[in-house]
Amino acid sequence: MKLYSYWRSTTSYRVRIALNLKGVSYETIQVDLVSGEQRAPEYVALNPIKGVPTLILEDGRVLTQSLAIIDYLDATIPNFPLVPEDPFERARVKAAAHTIAMDIHPVNNLKVLTHLKSRYGLTAEDGIEWFRHWMTEGFQAYQALLPDGVAFSFGNRPDLADINLVAQLYNAHRWGVDMTSFPRLLEIEKRALALPAFDAAHPENQPDAS
Amino acid sequence: MKLYSYWRSTTSYRVRIALNLKGVSYETIQVDLVSGEQRAPEYVALNPIKGVPTLILEDGRVLTQSLAIIDYLDATIPNFPLVPEDPFERARVKAAAHTIAMDIHPVNNLKVLTHLKSRYGLTAEDGIEWFRHWMTEGFQAYQALLPDGVAFSFGNRPDLADINLVAQLYNAHRWGVDMTSFPRLLEIEKRALALPAFDAAHPENQPDAS
Repeated sequence: MKLYSYWRSTTSYRVRIALNLKGVSYETIQVDLVSGEQRAPEYVALNPIKGVPTLILEDGRVLTQSLAIIDYLDATIPNFPLVPEDPFERARVKAAAHTIAMDIHPVNNLKVLTHLKSRYGLTAEDGIEWFRHWMTEGFQAYQALLPDGVAFSFGNRPDLADINLVAQLYNAHRWGVDMTSFPRLLEIEKRALALPAFDAAHPENQPDAS
Repeated sequence: MKLYSYWRSTTSYRVRIALNLKGVSYETIQVDLVSGEQRAPEYVALNPIKGVPTLILEDGRVLTQSLAIIDYLDATIPNFPLVPEDPFERARVKAAAHTIAMDIHPVNNLKVLTHLKSRYGLTAEDGIEWFRHWMTEGFQAYQALLPDGVAFSFGNRPDLADINLVAQLYNAHRWGVDMTSFPRLLEIEKRALALPAFDAAHPENQPDAS
């Protein structure tokens, strides 16, 4: 498989973790979001929302949207299931994953920040404050959704919720979110990053990292 | 089941459509987002992200996040499947649904607009422009993801993608998005709203509509 990916994109990071947990080897194709490669017509033909990641399957079929890609991987590769089989437990894990993927990430996307600066005159400092605001709110909700007594978010092995969390925490550190209220999330992150699947997917371990 | 819902919330609208398509009867409990009922401590205990919808199952268990709730309904109620069984086809439908649910809706959320106004001084007019910008971008991408020759987004009956689309189009009309480039989306909406499940879920047909 081929993954169109940007090293710092947390949605790319999610899919890299999932591919690694599933034991799938893949080729990374860099899409430099800062220089605007996601807006090149050839790329937009693959990914009309002009974002990363895009996954090209072995037979050339194209998938977009990180959680739809992960759903496909989980349905087709039985190794290391990423959500529980029980529908209620699965919905709980998905609700936590979506608290990151819908309530934090889209609002803190690079394209949103760029638009806020260019159209409404927000400063670099405003942008950092904006990022911190939505992460702090979202992490409070995420932490409140977790059961007690497990090593990861919902169990003793990582799942879809942890994939979303760990990717978002990269951004939290990057933008200096005060994490003192979220000790549980930091513990989960530490355990996850000790696993090769997460470590190899980390932004700073990507070929396009700078 | 009991659905905590706000009439104009498009995420509540999604779940109402899904419940109706599945043939589930439910009780609506109003959460007035404008007066801030979502921040009441009793409600936050159910829904830590302080949003709607929240679904209370017959046995009292609680589910949050609209797409996680719909996933649960689809897994437990076989009537009217909302996503294809084939993993690739399902991922395509989910990618389109997520183009609405992740690339448009979270950025156009009421809480984001309120924060933009109160913290960064955006005017009411700026807010409308903000809404229109993200909807126009997202609808372009959504339309590009659709196959030709079907009555709804991906087939001849509505699915998860249509549920997300139709709910978002309510907002598009409300905020005056120029839809002349999106004739296909308007045709899908017209067909969907002719169905009782969509019509009964429409914001203006809710008990708390004003």
